[in-house]
Amino acid sequence: MTRSAGIDVGGTKFLGVILDDNGDVLVEKRRATPTGADTLIGELVDFARELGEFDTLGVGVPGLVTRSGVLRAAPNLAGAYELAVGPTMSDAFGLAVAVDNDATCAALAEWQHGAARGFDDVVLVTLGTGIGGGVVMGGRLQRGANGFAGEIGHMVVKPDGPACPCGRRGCWERFASGRGLQMLAGGRRGEDVVEGARSGDRELLEVIDQFAHWVALGLVNLTNVLDPSCIVLGGGLTAAQDLFLPPIAREFSALLYSPEHRPHPTLNFAQLGERAGAIGAALLPSSQH
Amino acid sequence: MTRSAGIDVGGTKFLGVILDDNGDVLVEKRRATPTGADTLIGELVDFARELGEFDTLGVGVPGLVTRSGVLRAAPNLAGAYELAVGPTMSDAFGLAVAVDNDATCAALAEWQHGAARGFDDVVLVTLGTGIGGGVVMGGRLQRGANGFAGEIGHMVVKPDGPACPCGRRGCWERFASGRGLQMLAGGRRGEDVVEGARSGDRELLEVIDQFAHWVALGLVNLTNVLDPSCIVLGGGLTAAQDLFLPPIAREFSALLYSPEHRPHPTLNFAQLGERAGAIGAALLPSSQH
Repeated sequence: MTRSAGIDVGGTKFLGVILDDNGDVLVEKRRATPTGADTLIGELVDFARELGEFDTLGVGVPGLVTRSGVLRAAPNLAGAYELAVGPTMSDAFGLAVAVDNDATCAALAEWQHGAARGFDDVVLVTLGTGIGGGVVMGGRLQRGANGFAGEIGHMVVKPDGPACPCGRRGCWERFASGRGLQMLAGGRRGEDVVEGARSGDRELLEVIDQFAHWVALGLVNLTNVLDPSCIVLGGGLTAAQDLFLPPIAREFSALLYSPEHRPHPTLNFAQLGERAGAIGAALLPSSQH
Repeated sequence: MTRSAGIDVGGTKFLGVILDDNGDVLVEKRRATPTGADTLIGELVDFARELGEFDTLGVGVPGLVTRSGVLRAAPNLAGAYELAVGPTMSDAFGLAVAVDNDATCAALAEWQHGAARGFDDVVLVTLGTGIGGGVVMGGRLQRGANGFAGEIGHMVVKPDGPACPCGRRGCWERFASGRGLQMLAGGRRGEDVVEGARSGDRELLEVIDQFAHWVALGLVNLTNVLDPSCIVLGGGLTAAQDLFLPPIAREFSALLYSPEHRPHPTLNFAQLGERAGAIGAALLPSSQH
Protein backbone atom coordinates (compact mmCIF):
# COMPACT_ATOMS: atom_id res chain seq x y z
CA MET A 1 0.00 0.00 0.00
CA THR A 2 1.17 3.52 -0.81
CA ARG A 3 0.81 5.99 2.06
CA SER A 4 0.14 9.41 0.48
CA ALA A 5 0.58 12.40 2.78
CA GLY A 6 -0.97 15.80 2.08
CA ILE A 7 -0.82 19.09 3.96
CA ASP A 8 -3.11 22.07 3.45
CA VAL A 9 -1.46 25.29 4.61
CA GLY A 10 -4.24 27.65 5.66
CA GLY A 11 -4.11 31.19 6.96
CA THR A 12 -4.85 29.96 10.50
CA LYS A 13 -3.92 26.24 10.54
CA PHE A 14 -2.08 23.39 8.86
CA LEU A 15 -4.31 20.38 8.17
CA GLY A 16 -2.47 17.16 7.34
CA VAL A 17 -3.70 13.73 6.21
CA ILE A 18 -2.31 10.40 5.11
CA LEU A 19 -4.41 8.50 2.55
CA ASP A 20 -4.44 4.84 1.57
CA ASP A 21 -4.71 3.62 -2.04
CA ASN A 22 -8.49 4.13 -2.03
CA GLY A 23 -8.23 7.75 -0.93
CA ASP A 24 -9.46 6.95 2.57
CA VAL A 25 -8.03 9.04 5.40
CA LEU A 26 -5.74 6.99 7.71
CA VAL A 27 -4.28 9.89 9.71
CA GLU A 28 -5.46 13.45 10.29
CA LYS A 29 -3.69 16.18 12.27
CA ARG A 30 -3.80 19.95 12.76
CA ARG A 31 -1.39 22.64 13.93
CA ALA A 32 -1.65 26.44 14.14
CA THR A 33 0.03 28.25 11.22
CA PRO A 34 3.12 30.13 12.49
CA THR A 35 2.89 33.91 12.24
CA GLY A 36 6.20 34.57 10.47
CA ALA A 37 7.10 33.42 6.97
CA ASP A 38 10.67 32.71 8.17
CA THR A 39 9.57 29.72 10.28
CA LEU A 40 6.89 28.44 7.88
CA ILE A 41 8.94 25.82 6.02
CA GLY A 42 10.64 24.57 9.21
CA GLU A 43 7.25 24.11 10.88
CA LEU A 44 5.92 22.37 7.76
CA VAL A 45 8.80 19.87 7.76
CA ASP A 46 8.24 19.20 11.46
CA PHE A 47 4.48 18.80 10.97
CA ALA A 48 4.98 16.39 8.06
CA ARG A 49 7.26 14.26 10.31
CA GLU A 50 4.56 14.25 12.99
CA LEU A 51 2.04 12.77 10.52
CA GLY A 52 4.02 9.52 10.54
CA GLU A 53 5.50 7.45 7.72
CA PHE A 54 4.55 8.23 4.12
CA ASP A 55 5.69 7.35 0.61
CA THR A 56 4.67 10.56 -1.16
CA LEU A 57 3.99 14.12 0.03
CA GLY A 58 2.04 17.00 -1.45
CA VAL A 59 1.41 20.48 -0.07
CA GLY A 60 -1.35 23.00 -0.84
CA VAL A 61 -0.67 26.68 -0.21
CA PRO A 62 -2.87 29.78 -0.54
CA GLY A 63 -1.28 31.82 -3.32
CA LEU A 64 0.57 31.79 -6.62
CA VAL A 65 2.76 28.68 -6.86
CA THR A 66 5.16 27.97 -9.69
CA ARG A 67 5.34 24.56 -11.30
CA SER A 68 8.61 23.92 -9.45
CA GLY A 69 6.94 24.51 -6.10
CA VAL A 70 8.02 28.07 -5.29
CA LEU A 71 5.34 30.10 -3.49
CA ARG A 72 5.57 33.41 -5.31
CA ALA A 73 3.06 35.51 -3.38
CA ALA A 74 0.50 34.65 -0.69
CA PRO A 75 -1.45 37.72 0.50
CA ASN A 76 -3.05 35.69 3.33
CA LEU A 77 0.26 34.33 4.69
CA ALA A 78 2.02 37.42 6.03
CA GLY A 79 5.33 38.06 4.36
CA ALA A 80 5.35 34.90 2.27
CA TYR A 81 7.08 35.83 -0.97
CA GLU A 82 9.33 33.71 -3.13
CA LEU A 83 9.34 30.85 -0.58
CA ALA A 84 10.99 27.69 -1.92
CA VAL A 85 8.46 25.35 -0.28
CA GLY A 86 8.79 22.49 -2.78
CA PRO A 87 12.58 22.44 -3.25
CA THR A 88 13.34 22.81 0.49
CA MET A 89 10.90 20.11 1.57
CA SER A 90 12.10 17.79 -1.21
CA ASP A 91 15.62 18.11 0.21
CA ALA A 92 14.39 17.49 3.77
CA PHE A 93 12.56 14.27 2.88
CA GLY A 94 14.64 12.98 -0.02
CA LEU A 95 11.61 12.75 -2.32
CA ALA A 96 9.91 15.01 -4.85
CA VAL A 97 7.39 17.03 -2.81
CA ALA A 98 4.57 18.37 -5.00
CA VAL A 99 3.28 21.84 -4.17
CA ASP A 100 0.25 23.54 -5.68
CA ASN A 101 -2.37 26.16 -4.99
CA ASP A 102 -4.82 25.14 -2.25
CA ALA A 103 -7.91 25.59 -4.42
CA THR A 104 -6.28 23.56 -7.20
CA CYS A 105 -5.73 20.81 -4.59
CA ALA A 106 -9.37 21.03 -3.48
CA ALA A 107 -10.50 20.77 -7.12
CA LEU A 108 -8.38 17.66 -7.59
CA ALA A 109 -9.87 16.09 -4.44
CA GLU A 110 -13.51 16.88 -5.28
CA TRP A 111 -12.95 15.68 -8.86
CA GLN A 112 -11.38 12.34 -7.87
CA HIS A 113 -13.26 11.54 -4.66
CA GLY A 114 -16.01 14.09 -4.09
CA ALA A 115 -18.74 16.19 -5.72
CA ALA A 116 -17.37 16.16 -9.29
CA ARG A 117 -16.58 12.46 -9.65
CA GLY A 118 -17.06 11.30 -13.25
CA PHE A 119 -17.06 14.75 -14.87
CA ASP A 120 -14.32 15.74 -17.36
CA ASP A 121 -14.81 19.52 -17.27
CA VAL A 122 -15.06 20.96 -13.78
CA VAL A 123 -14.67 24.30 -12.04
CA LEU A 124 -14.29 24.33 -8.28
CA VAL A 125 -15.13 27.65 -6.63
CA THR A 126 -14.34 28.09 -2.93
CA LEU A 127 -16.40 30.82 -1.34
CA GLY A 128 -14.52 31.64 1.84
CA THR A 129 -12.97 34.83 3.17
CA GLY A 130 -11.96 35.35 -0.47
CA ILE A 131 -12.62 33.19 -3.56
CA GLY A 132 -10.34 30.47 -4.86
CA GLY A 133 -10.68 28.27 -7.90
CA GLY A 134 -9.47 25.12 -9.58
CA VAL A 135 -9.99 24.00 -13.16
CA VAL A 136 -10.31 20.55 -14.78
CA MET A 137 -10.64 20.61 -18.58
CA GLY A 138 -10.67 17.72 -21.01
CA GLY A 139 -10.24 15.24 -18.14
CA ARG A 140 -7.07 16.84 -16.83
CA LEU A 141 -6.28 19.12 -13.91
CA GLN A 142 -5.19 22.40 -15.55
CA ARG A 143 -2.53 24.54 -13.91
CA GLY A 144 -1.91 27.03 -16.71
CA ALA A 145 1.46 28.08 -18.08
CA ASN A 146 2.91 29.04 -14.68
CA GLY A 147 0.68 27.13 -12.29
CA PHE A 148 -1.47 30.24 -11.70
CA ALA A 149 -4.72 29.15 -13.42
CA GLY A 150 -7.89 29.46 -11.34
CA GLU A 151 -7.25 32.84 -9.69
CA ILE A 152 -10.92 33.47 -10.37
CA GLY A 153 -11.59 35.68 -7.35
CA HIS A 154 -9.77 38.49 -9.10
CA MET A 155 -11.93 38.61 -12.21
CA VAL A 156 -13.05 42.22 -12.33
CA VAL A 157 -16.88 42.29 -12.52
CA LYS A 158 -17.51 45.95 -11.60
CA PRO A 159 -14.62 48.28 -12.46
CA ASP A 160 -16.07 51.12 -10.37
CA GLY A 161 -16.67 48.79 -7.40
CA PRO A 162 -14.93 48.65 -4.02
CA ALA A 163 -11.11 48.58 -3.85
CA CYS A 164 -9.50 45.13 -3.54
CA PRO A 165 -6.22 44.44 -1.67
CA CYS A 166 -4.87 43.18 -5.03
CA GLY A 167 -4.74 46.80 -6.17
CA ARG A 168 -7.75 46.88 -8.47
CA ARG A 169 -11.46 47.61 -8.00
CA GLY A 170 -14.54 45.45 -8.20
CA CYS A 171 -12.93 41.99 -8.19
CA TRP A 172 -15.50 39.20 -7.96
CA GLU A 173 -14.41 38.31 -4.42
CA ARG A 174 -15.35 41.83 -3.23
CA PHE A 175 -18.99 40.72 -3.71
CA ALA A 176 -19.28 36.95 -3.74
CA SER A 177 -17.12 35.89 -0.77
CA GLY A 178 -17.71 35.91 2.99
CA ARG A 179 -16.38 39.46 3.08
CA GLY A 180 -18.70 40.36 0.19
CA LEU A 181 -21.73 39.03 2.05
CA GLN A 182 -20.73 41.13 5.04
CA MET A 183 -20.40 44.24 2.85
CA LEU A 184 -23.80 43.67 1.20
CA ALA A 185 -25.29 43.31 4.71
CA GLY A 186 -23.95 46.68 5.82
CA GLY A 187 -21.22 45.18 7.99
CA ARG A 188 -23.21 42.45 9.72
CA ARG A 189 -21.35 39.15 10.16
CA GLY A 190 -22.13 36.35 7.73
CA GLU A 191 -23.36 34.07 10.53
CA ASP A 192 -25.82 36.76 11.66
CA VAL A 193 -27.08 37.26 8.10
CA VAL A 194 -27.68 33.52 7.74
CA GLU A 195 -29.40 33.28 11.12
CA GLY A 196 -31.57 36.34 10.47
CA ALA A 197 -32.55 35.12 7.00
CA ARG A 198 -33.48 31.71 8.40
CA SER A 199 -35.83 33.37 10.88
CA GLY A 200 -37.52 35.21 8.01
CA ASP A 201 -35.97 38.70 8.18
CA ARG A 202 -37.03 40.17 4.80
CA GLU A 203 -34.15 42.61 4.56
CA LEU A 204 -31.62 39.85 5.13
CA LEU A 205 -33.38 37.53 2.68
CA GLU A 206 -32.95 40.34 0.14
CA VAL A 207 -29.24 40.47 1.01
CA ILE A 208 -28.99 36.71 0.37
CA ASP A 209 -30.62 37.25 -3.05
CA GLN A 210 -28.20 40.04 -3.94
CA PHE A 211 -25.31 37.88 -2.83
CA ALA A 212 -26.61 34.94 -4.87
CA HIS A 213 -26.82 37.23 -7.91
CA TRP A 214 -23.14 38.16 -7.59
CA VAL A 215 -22.11 34.52 -7.09
CA ALA A 216 -24.14 33.51 -10.17
CA LEU A 217 -22.72 36.34 -12.29
CA GLY A 218 -19.18 35.07 -11.74
CA LEU A 219 -20.19 31.44 -12.29
CA VAL A 220 -21.80 32.42 -15.61
CA ASN A 221 -18.63 34.27 -16.63
CA LEU A 222 -16.63 31.12 -15.88
CA THR A 223 -19.13 29.00 -17.81
CA ASN A 224 -18.77 31.27 -20.85
CA VAL A 225 -15.00 30.82 -20.78
CA LEU A 226 -14.67 27.15 -19.74
CA ASP A 227 -18.00 25.41 -20.50
CA PRO A 228 -17.84 23.05 -17.51
CA SER A 229 -20.24 20.12 -17.07
CA CYS A 230 -20.01 20.49 -13.29
CA ILE A 231 -19.44 23.45 -10.98
CA VAL A 232 -18.54 22.65 -7.37
CA LEU A 233 -19.08 25.28 -4.68
CA GLY A 234 -16.92 24.90 -1.60
CA GLY A 235 -15.61 26.97 1.29
CA GLY A 236 -17.08 28.26 4.53
CA LEU A 237 -20.36 29.46 3.01
CA THR A 238 -21.33 25.91 2.08
CA ALA A 239 -22.32 25.40 5.73
CA ALA A 240 -25.57 27.20 4.78
CA GLN A 241 -26.00 25.60 1.36
CA ASP A 242 -29.74 25.01 1.84
CA LEU A 243 -30.14 28.79 2.05
CA PHE A 244 -27.74 29.74 -0.76
CA LEU A 245 -28.20 27.06 -3.43
CA PRO A 246 -31.78 27.83 -4.58
CA PRO A 247 -31.20 31.56 -5.29
CA ILE A 248 -27.75 30.89 -6.82
CA ALA A 249 -29.23 28.24 -9.16
CA ARG A 250 -32.12 30.53 -10.11
CA GLU A 251 -29.86 33.52 -10.86
CA PHE A 252 -27.42 31.29 -12.74
CA SER A 253 -30.13 30.08 -15.13
CA ALA A 254 -31.40 33.64 -15.60
CA LEU A 255 -27.94 34.97 -16.50
CA LEU A 256 -26.65 32.10 -18.67
CA TYR A 257 -25.99 32.92 -22.32
CA SER A 258 -28.44 31.18 -24.69
CA PRO A 259 -29.88 29.06 -21.83
CA GLU A 260 -32.48 27.28 -23.97
CA HIS A 261 -29.89 25.98 -26.45
CA ARG A 262 -27.43 24.29 -24.11
CA PRO A 263 -27.21 21.77 -21.30
CA HIS A 264 -26.73 23.58 -17.99
CA PRO A 265 -23.79 22.55 -15.84
CA THR A 266 -24.55 20.55 -12.71
CA LEU A 267 -24.22 22.79 -9.66
CA ASN A 268 -22.99 20.79 -6.65
CA PHE A 269 -21.76 21.69 -3.21
CA ALA A 270 -18.39 20.29 -2.16
CA GLN A 271 -18.47 16.99 -0.29
CA LEU A 272 -15.05 16.77 1.35
CA GLY A 273 -15.39 19.74 3.67
CA GLU A 274 -12.33 21.33 5.22
CA ARG A 275 -10.24 18.24 4.39
CA ALA A 276 -10.54 18.79 0.61
CA GLY A 277 -7.29 20.78 0.36
CA ALA A 278 -5.24 18.24 2.29
CA ILE A 279 -6.74 15.26 0.44
CA GLY A 280 -6.02 16.99 -2.89
CA ALA A 281 -2.47 17.78 -1.78
CA ALA A 282 -2.00 14.07 -1.03
CA LEU A 283 -3.27 13.25 -4.55
CA LEU A 284 -0.90 15.72 -6.25
CA PRO A 285 2.14 13.44 -6.69
CA SER A 286 0.11 10.81 -8.58
CA SER A 287 -1.58 13.49 -10.73
CA GLN A 288 1.64 15.14 -11.95
CA HIS A 289 2.53 14.70 -15.59
CA MET B 1 -0.44 14.14 -49.82
CA THR B 2 -3.60 14.78 -47.79
CA ARG B 3 -5.76 17.61 -49.14
CA SER B 4 -7.48 19.21 -46.11
CA ALA B 5 -10.42 21.48 -46.90
CA GLY B 6 -11.72 24.10 -44.49
CA ILE B 7 -14.61 26.56 -44.70
CA ASP B 8 -15.16 29.56 -42.46
CA VAL B 9 -18.83 30.58 -42.40
CA GLY B 10 -18.93 34.30 -41.70
CA GLY B 11 -21.86 36.66 -41.31
CA THR B 12 -21.22 38.10 -44.79
CA LYS B 13 -19.14 35.48 -46.64
CA PHE B 14 -17.93 31.89 -46.82
CA LEU B 15 -14.13 31.63 -47.09
CA GLY B 16 -12.81 28.23 -48.15
CA VAL B 17 -9.28 26.81 -48.41
CA ILE B 18 -7.55 23.55 -49.20
CA LEU B 19 -4.26 22.94 -47.36
CA ASP B 20 -1.38 20.59 -48.12
CA ASP B 21 0.42 18.55 -45.43
CA ASN B 22 2.53 21.58 -44.40
CA GLY B 23 -0.50 23.75 -43.84
CA ASP B 24 0.17 25.78 -46.97
CA VAL B 25 -2.86 27.11 -48.84
CA LEU B 26 -3.36 25.40 -52.23
CA VAL B 27 -6.84 26.74 -53.01
CA GLU B 28 -8.77 29.75 -51.72
CA LYS B 29 -12.34 30.76 -52.62
CA ARG B 30 -15.10 33.05 -51.36
CA ARG B 31 -18.86 33.24 -51.69
CA ALA B 32 -21.51 35.54 -50.16
CA THR B 33 -23.34 33.99 -47.19
CA PRO B 34 -26.98 33.30 -48.11
CA THR B 35 -29.52 35.36 -46.20
CA GLY B 36 -31.79 32.53 -45.03
CA ALA B 37 -30.83 29.72 -42.69
CA ASP B 38 -32.89 27.28 -44.81
CA THR B 39 -30.44 27.43 -47.74
CA LEU B 40 -27.27 27.63 -45.63
CA ILE B 41 -26.32 23.94 -45.61
CA GLY B 42 -27.18 23.47 -49.29
CA GLU B 43 -24.97 26.42 -50.24
CA LEU B 44 -22.20 25.08 -48.01
CA VAL B 45 -22.26 21.67 -49.70
CA ASP B 46 -22.18 23.35 -53.12
CA PHE B 47 -19.33 25.66 -52.06
CA ALA B 48 -17.29 22.74 -50.69
CA ARG B 49 -17.69 20.94 -54.07
CA GLU B 50 -16.48 24.10 -55.83
CA LEU B 51 -13.24 24.04 -53.79
CA GLY B 52 -12.19 20.89 -55.66
CA GLU B 53 -11.08 17.48 -54.43
CA PHE B 54 -10.26 17.00 -50.75
CA ASP B 55 -9.63 14.14 -48.30
CA THR B 56 -10.94 15.81 -45.13
CA LEU B 57 -13.32 18.70 -44.49
CA GLY B 58 -13.84 20.99 -41.51
CA VAL B 59 -16.24 23.90 -41.05
CA GLY B 60 -16.11 26.88 -38.69
CA VAL B 61 -19.36 28.60 -37.76
CA PRO B 62 -20.12 31.69 -35.65
CA GLY B 63 -22.05 30.40 -32.64
CA LEU B 64 -22.55 27.57 -30.18
CA VAL B 65 -21.68 24.24 -31.80
CA THR B 66 -22.14 20.87 -30.13
CA ARG B 67 -19.44 18.24 -30.27
CA SER B 68 -21.49 16.33 -32.85
CA GLY B 69 -21.54 19.35 -35.18
CA VAL B 70 -24.99 20.82 -34.54
CA LEU B 71 -25.11 24.61 -34.66
CA ARG B 72 -27.27 25.38 -31.65
CA ALA B 73 -27.54 29.16 -31.89
CA ALA B 74 -25.81 31.75 -34.07
CA PRO B 75 -26.98 35.32 -33.36
CA ASN B 76 -25.07 36.65 -36.37
CA LEU B 77 -26.52 34.13 -38.86
CA ALA B 78 -30.19 35.12 -39.02
CA GLY B 79 -32.48 32.30 -38.02
CA ALA B 80 -29.79 29.68 -37.60
CA TYR B 81 -30.91 27.50 -34.71
CA GLU B 82 -30.40 23.77 -34.23
CA LEU B 83 -28.86 23.40 -37.71
CA ALA B 84 -27.37 19.93 -38.29
CA VAL B 85 -24.34 21.26 -40.21
CA GLY B 86 -21.98 18.41 -39.35
CA PRO B 87 -24.32 15.43 -39.77
CA THR B 88 -25.86 16.73 -43.03
CA MET B 89 -22.51 17.55 -44.64
CA SER B 90 -21.05 14.23 -43.48
CA ASP B 91 -23.88 12.46 -45.32
CA ALA B 92 -23.35 14.59 -48.44
CA PHE B 93 -19.64 13.83 -48.71
CA GLY B 94 -19.46 10.36 -47.16
CA LEU B 95 -16.84 11.42 -44.64
CA ALA B 96 -16.84 12.73 -41.06
CA VAL B 97 -17.09 16.52 -41.46
CA ALA B 98 -15.76 18.30 -38.35
CA VAL B 99 -17.61 21.44 -37.26
CA ASP B 100 -16.55 23.86 -34.55
CA ASN B 101 -16.89 27.44 -33.45
CA ASP B 102 -15.11 29.90 -35.78
CA ALA B 103 -12.97 31.42 -33.02
CA THR B 104 -11.97 27.93 -31.85
CA CYS B 105 -10.89 27.26 -35.45
CA ALA B 106 -8.89 30.49 -35.54
CA ALA B 107 -7.22 29.57 -32.24
CA LEU B 108 -6.24 26.18 -33.65
CA ALA B 109 -4.78 27.82 -36.78
CA GLU B 110 -2.81 30.51 -34.93
CA TRP B 111 -1.55 27.90 -32.44
CA GLN B 112 -0.36 25.43 -35.10
CA HIS B 113 0.78 27.79 -37.87
CA GLY B 114 0.61 31.38 -36.65
CA ALA B 115 1.20 33.76 -33.77
CA ALA B 116 1.08 31.18 -30.94
CA ARG B 117 3.31 28.48 -32.41
CA GLY B 118 5.23 26.63 -29.68
CA PHE B 119 3.05 27.74 -26.74
CA ASP B 120 1.06 25.17 -24.71
CA ASP B 121 -1.39 27.57 -23.03
CA VAL B 122 -3.00 30.05 -25.41
CA VAL B 123 -6.04 32.29 -25.54
CA LEU B 124 -7.11 33.69 -28.89
CA VAL B 125 -9.30 36.78 -28.71
CA THR B 126 -10.91 38.04 -31.90
CA LEU B 127 -11.89 41.68 -31.65
CA GLY B 128 -14.39 42.13 -34.46
CA THR B 129 -18.00 43.30 -34.53
CA GLY B 130 -18.28 41.22 -31.34
CA ILE B 131 -15.62 39.22 -29.48
CA GLY B 132 -14.86 35.54 -30.02
CA GLY B 133 -12.39 33.30 -28.24
CA GLY B 134 -10.54 30.03 -28.42
CA VAL B 135 -8.64 28.24 -25.67
CA VAL B 136 -5.59 25.94 -25.71
CA MET B 137 -4.61 24.53 -22.28
CA GLY B 138 -1.98 21.97 -21.43
CA GLY B 139 -1.05 21.62 -25.11
CA ARG B 140 -4.58 20.71 -26.22
CA LEU B 141 -7.36 22.63 -27.93
CA GLN B 142 -10.11 22.83 -25.29
CA ARG B 143 -13.76 22.76 -26.33
CA GLY B 144 -15.40 22.40 -22.92
CA ALA B 145 -18.07 19.90 -21.98
CA ASN B 146 -20.42 20.85 -24.84
CA GLY B 147 -18.07 22.52 -27.29
CA PHE B 148 -19.04 25.98 -25.99
CA ALA B 149 -15.78 27.01 -24.29
CA GLY B 150 -14.37 30.39 -25.29
CA GLU B 151 -17.58 32.42 -25.38
CA ILE B 152 -15.51 35.12 -23.75
CA GLY B 153 -17.31 38.10 -25.26
CA HIS B 154 -20.19 37.50 -22.89
CA MET B 155 -18.20 37.76 -19.65
CA VAL B 156 -20.07 40.44 -17.75
CA VAL B 157 -17.60 43.16 -16.76
CA LYS B 158 -20.03 45.95 -15.82
CA PRO B 159 -23.43 44.71 -14.64
CA ASP B 160 -24.97 48.18 -14.93
CA GLY B 161 -23.50 48.70 -18.42
CA PRO B 162 -25.26 48.83 -21.82
CA ALA B 163 -27.73 46.09 -22.77
CA CYS B 164 -26.35 43.23 -24.89
CA PRO B 165 -28.36 41.29 -27.53
CA CYS B 166 -27.64 38.18 -25.41
CA GLY B 167 -30.10 39.50 -22.86
CA ARG B 168 -27.72 40.72 -20.18
CA ARG B 169 -25.94 44.01 -19.48
CA GLY B 170 -22.31 45.03 -19.63
CA CYS B 171 -20.86 42.05 -21.49
CA TRP B 172 -17.19 42.54 -22.37
CA GLU B 173 -17.99 42.83 -26.08
CA ARG B 174 -20.17 45.88 -25.38
CA PHE B 175 -16.90 47.74 -24.69
CA ALA B 176 -13.96 45.94 -26.25
CA SER B 177 -15.24 45.14 -29.76
CA GLY B 178 -15.65 47.21 -32.91
CA ARG B 179 -19.11 48.19 -31.71
CA GLY B 180 -17.65 49.07 -28.31
CA LEU B 181 -15.08 51.37 -29.89
CA GLN B 182 -17.89 53.09 -31.78
CA MET B 183 -19.90 53.52 -28.57
CA LEU B 184 -16.91 54.96 -26.69
CA ALA B 185 -16.40 57.40 -29.58
CA GLY B 186 -19.96 58.70 -29.34
CA GLY B 187 -21.11 56.87 -32.48
CA ARG B 188 -18.19 57.65 -34.78
CA ARG B 189 -17.10 54.75 -37.00
CA GLY B 190 -14.05 52.77 -35.94
CA GLU B 191 -12.19 53.70 -39.13
CA ASP B 192 -12.75 57.40 -38.41
CA VAL B 193 -11.55 57.00 -34.83
CA VAL B 194 -8.38 55.30 -36.04
CA GLU B 195 -7.76 57.92 -38.73
CA GLY B 196 -8.43 60.82 -36.36
CA ALA B 197 -6.21 59.35 -33.66
CA ARG B 198 -3.40 58.85 -36.17
CA SER B 199 -3.58 62.53 -37.13
CA GLY B 200 -3.19 63.45 -33.45
CA ASP B 201 -6.80 64.27 -32.38
CA ARG B 202 -6.45 64.31 -28.57
CA GLU B 203 -10.07 63.41 -27.89
CA LEU B 204 -9.85 60.36 -30.15
CA LEU B 205 -6.51 59.34 -28.66
CA GLU B 206 -8.29 59.40 -25.29
CA VAL B 207 -11.01 57.14 -26.78
CA ILE B 208 -8.30 54.70 -27.93
CA ASP B 209 -6.90 54.67 -24.37
CA GLN B 210 -10.34 53.99 -22.86
CA PHE B 211 -10.89 51.23 -25.39
CA ALA B 212 -7.47 49.73 -24.63
CA HIS B 213 -8.36 49.76 -20.93
CA TRP B 214 -11.52 47.69 -21.57
CA VAL B 215 -9.66 45.26 -23.81
CA ALA B 216 -6.95 44.85 -21.15
CA LEU B 217 -9.48 44.38 -18.35
CA GLY B 218 -11.00 41.37 -20.11
CA LEU B 219 -7.57 39.97 -21.03
CA VAL B 220 -6.54 40.19 -17.37
CA ASN B 221 -9.74 38.41 -16.31
CA LEU B 222 -8.93 35.62 -18.77
CA THR B 223 -5.34 35.49 -17.50
CA ASN B 224 -6.59 35.08 -13.91
CA VAL B 225 -8.74 32.13 -14.97
CA LEU B 226 -6.51 30.42 -17.55
CA ASP B 227 -2.90 31.59 -16.96
CA PRO B 228 -1.92 31.52 -20.65
CA SER B 229 1.68 31.92 -21.81
CA CYS B 230 0.47 33.61 -25.01
CA ILE B 231 -2.53 35.77 -25.84
CA VAL B 232 -3.29 36.29 -29.54
CA LEU B 233 -5.41 39.24 -30.61
CA GLY B 234 -7.20 38.81 -33.93
CA GLY B 235 -10.15 40.24 -35.81
CA GLY B 236 -10.81 43.42 -37.74
CA LEU B 237 -9.22 45.77 -35.23
CA THR B 238 -5.82 44.20 -35.78
CA ALA B 239 -5.56 46.24 -38.96
CA ALA B 240 -4.55 49.14 -36.68
CA GLN B 241 -2.40 47.10 -34.31
CA ASP B 242 0.38 49.71 -34.20
CA LEU B 243 -2.16 52.09 -32.64
CA PHE B 244 -3.82 49.60 -30.27
CA LEU B 245 -1.01 47.36 -29.01
CA PRO B 246 1.01 49.87 -26.93
CA PRO B 247 -1.93 51.10 -24.80
CA ILE B 248 -3.38 47.56 -24.47
CA ALA B 249 0.00 46.20 -23.30
CA ARG B 250 0.43 49.11 -20.86
CA GLU B 251 -3.06 48.72 -19.36
CA PHE B 252 -2.64 44.94 -19.20
CA SER B 253 0.52 45.23 -17.07
CA ALA B 254 -1.15 47.82 -14.84
CA LEU B 255 -4.19 45.61 -14.20
CA LEU B 256 -2.48 42.22 -13.83
CA TYR B 257 -2.76 40.56 -10.39
CA SER B 258 0.59 40.42 -8.60
CA PRO B 259 2.48 41.57 -11.72
CA GLU B 260 5.94 41.60 -10.11
CA HIS B 261 5.71 37.94 -9.03
CA ARG B 262 4.84 36.28 -12.33
CA PRO B 263 5.92 36.02 -15.94
CA HIS B 264 3.61 38.08 -18.14
CA PRO B 265 1.99 36.32 -21.09
CA THR B 266 3.28 37.19 -24.54
CA LEU B 267 0.80 39.48 -26.28
CA ASN B 268 0.82 38.85 -30.03
CA PHE B 269 -1.36 39.95 -32.89
CA ALA B 270 -2.75 37.22 -35.14
CA GLN B 271 -0.67 36.36 -38.21
CA LEU B 272 -3.07 34.49 -40.45
CA GLY B 273 -5.49 37.34 -41.08
CA GLU B 274 -8.97 36.63 -42.39
CA ARG B 275 -7.92 33.12 -43.46
CA ALA B 276 -7.34 31.96 -39.85
CA GLY B 277 -10.86 30.54 -39.44
CA ALA B 278 -10.76 28.57 -42.69
CA ILE B 279 -7.23 27.27 -42.06
CA GLY B 280 -8.27 26.19 -38.54
CA ALA B 281 -11.39 24.51 -39.92
CA ALA B 282 -9.17 22.54 -42.30
CA LEU B 283 -7.00 21.48 -39.34
CA LEU B 284 -9.99 20.30 -37.25
CA PRO B 285 -10.23 16.71 -38.50
CA SER B 286 -6.60 15.97 -37.57
CA SER B 287 -7.00 17.65 -34.17
CA GLN B 288 -10.04 15.64 -33.05
CA HIS B 289 -9.53 13.15 -30.27
